[in-house]
Amino acid sequence: MKKIAVIYHSGYGHTAFFANKVAEGAVATKKVEVEVLTVEQATARMDTLSQFDGMIWGSPTYMGNVSGPFKTFMDASGSVWMKQGWSGKWAAGFTVSGSPSGDKQSTLISLTVLAAQHGMFWMPLMMTNETYAGVKPDDAVNRLGSSLGAMAQAGQVAPEVAFAPGDLKTATLFGAKFAEIVATKS
Amino acid sequence: MKKIAVIYHSGYGHTAFFANKVAEGAVATKKVEVEVLTVEQATARMDTLSQFDGMIWGSPTYMGNVSGPFKTFMDASGSVWMKQGWSGKWAAGFTVSGSPSGDKQSTLISLTVLAAQHGMFWMPLMMTNETYAGVKPDDAVNRLGSSLGAMAQAGQVAPEVAFAPGDLKTATLFGAKFAEIVATKS
Amino acid sequence: MKKIAVIYHSGYGHTAFFANKVAEGAVATKKVEVEVLTVEQATARMDTLSQFDGMIWGSPTYMGNVSGPFKTFMDASGSVWMKQGWSGKWAAGFTVSGSPSGDKQSTLISLTVLAAQHGMFWMPLMMTNETYAGVKPDDAVNRLGSSLGAMAQAGQVAPEVAFAPGDLKTATLFGAKFAEIVATKS
Amino acid sequence: MKKIAVIYHSGYGHTAFFANKVAEGAVATKKVEVEVLTVEQATARMDTLSQFDGMIWGSPTYMGNVSGPFKTFMDASGSVWMKQGWSGKWAAGFTVSGSPSGDKQSTLISLTVLAAQHGMFWMPLMMTNETYAGVKPDDAVNRLGSSLGAMAQAGQVAPEVAFAPGDLKTATLFGAKFAEIVATKS
Repeated sequence: MKKIAVIYHSGYGHTAFFANKVAEGAVATKKVEVEVLTVEQATARMDTLSQFDGMIWGSPTYMGNVSGPFKTFMDASGSVWMKQGWSGKWAAGFTVSGSPSGDKQSTLISLTVLAAQHGMFWMPLMMTNETYAGVKPDDAVNRLGSSLGAMAQAGQVAPEVAFAPGDLKTATLFGAKFAEIVATKS
Repeated sequence: MKKIAVIYHSGYGHTAFFANKVAEGAVATKKVEVEVLTVEQATARMDTLSQFDGMIWGSPTYMGNVSGPFKTFMDASGSVWMKQGWSGKWAAGFTVSGSPSGDKQSTLISLTVLAAQHGMFWMPLMMTNETYAGVKPDDAVNRLGSSLGAMAQAGQVAPEVAFAPGDLKTATLFGAKFAEIVATKS
Repeated sequence: MKKIAVIYHSGYGHTAFFANKVAEGAVATKKVEVEVLTVEQATARMDTLSQFDGMIWGSPTYMGNVSGPFKTFMDASGSVWMKQGWSGKWAAGFTVSGSPSGDKQSTLISLTVLAAQHGMFWMPLMMTNETYAGVKPDDAVNRLGSSLGAMAQAGQVAPEVAFAPGDLKTATLFGAKFAEIVATKS
Repeated sequence: MKKIAVIYHSGYGHTAFFANKVAEGAVATKKVEVEVLTVEQATARMDTLSQFDGMIWGSPTYMGNVSGPFKTFMDASGSVWMKQGWSGKWAAGFTVSGSPSGDKQSTLISLTVLAAQHGMFWMPLMMTNETYAGVKPDDAVNRLGSSLGAMAQAGQVAPEVAFAPGDLKTATLFGAKFAEIVATKS
């Protein structure tokens, strides 16, 4: 069975919450084994991450880009980059911030470039904004209209009540889609 | 008196409507002369655009970037680029699309890079998301949380009723701010 | 047999020359059928492009991004976007400009975002800069150090003599790699 | 007299060397006071950085973006962001990596977005590639063809011998230009 990792940084618990929703979606497919790792955990076992056939990376958007801890993980992956140890594996990404748009796209661009540096294939979001199909904005899959990866908006309340239902639906569908792609195209 | 131009492309009238709101904000300051030009008009008088001390560029976001007609205007500006005829002038930008986020940031990045190619100074949005200050989302200035320039969301209805009040407030404040900067820092 | 298309715009023949080198690399693998199309040809048969299992897109970098004609093709693909007709297919990209760096990366970012809008998987360059392995810069594969796609530099001389040998080697290897990926992972 | 800071991170001394060349160019104008700070020094006195009328930010490009330490500084500046304490000040940026292109542009985009988040004006490179004017590539100002900021290439040798003369000329001219802009347009 193929294996995937959801690797994330979370400053206040919101991105962790979202990461677990993504992982739930992947687990539910029963098509891949799923591990959820913080960037610290992932960095500690950098040499063993090549066991995964795919990685979904998640970071809050801080000051218009991935967070410092997530970037530190990216830099640590430079040791793998030198031998292109993740080449031909799959990657995808998500980000969370407080505003609907909020420079989340530049975070996703950074994750896309990271995948490219590693020679990894990039799976984009693969879902259009369901609002256009008449679903109520809060409930709509990809209600923010992202393309490179999953975007979610979370205010300064507890993670359990911070997300619109549409964003959480997006998370599980995204995890499920990634699982399916890795299972069939690795 | 300093002069600015608002140069835009609009496929269905929404970006034109927003461009005029931006221009209204600039005009109201009485600090600069303002002209509103379509990209076709601007291209036709490319050689005379250097009379402007600043330009605000606006494009809908189509397929994740400036529209084809706007890009065609960008290419036409290559004749000015060769002699760096706009170097040291001011630039700013805005974009409109149907989703809250909707890859609008990559459009603004393209406009920022265009300004840089021309050696122009970039004025960003300079407004934080008023939602954080307790304003109702629809009424909030910069409710989408942009930074490089102004973002607006418009659905497939007539321009007059397509925009949230917050987005239109953002437009006039943005135009006014640009006028003030060009008037004092050119 | 899987089919791929190399779709490009070329203002002065350099990007056309490079596109054909990419296609040669793909053809030589005998793993896919290859067609080379200008953006005008591709736009004229937009409805039939979904027959291809993968597309390699190429554009010169003009004013820091894809050319106007290439962007016009991108916009035209919006008709396919609405039904997500290219979802799950493969995409990759390349760009050519006169300087070693020359804002070519923002062109590749635009192509990556286009793929994401269409729900297509992105194959990055998958080659490290051979200069680091001791190859003479001009002869080195990926001598410019790109990651999202292939970059080439061409001066204002005839296409046949405009490219460094390393850039042309990169082109054929890139085409071959894409053919292999599409043949095995579609 | 206006004050500027050159704030940088350097992993192996190359970006530090380049940062000092930028500072030399600024000092030589005698139009501004110049301080050179590491990101650690700058973070330690974050509350006092608003005394500067402009900041030039420099980071190596690691894995396609600013380095982890530089991103950590960016995150720390979030405390200033909340009160928009740097709004209306000037910013500019540079980056160093081993390849001619090497995803340096995405690093500069990150710095541009940082400036925009802070409401700062962005001064781009403002120099065209002198190679086009017939200067020998190694000696040419902006030989790599950047626009958003200064790019330099440095191999794995001592900083003193790592840079092409053109890149160092670019550094001093860039610092001088920034000094002049801050002195006259703050």
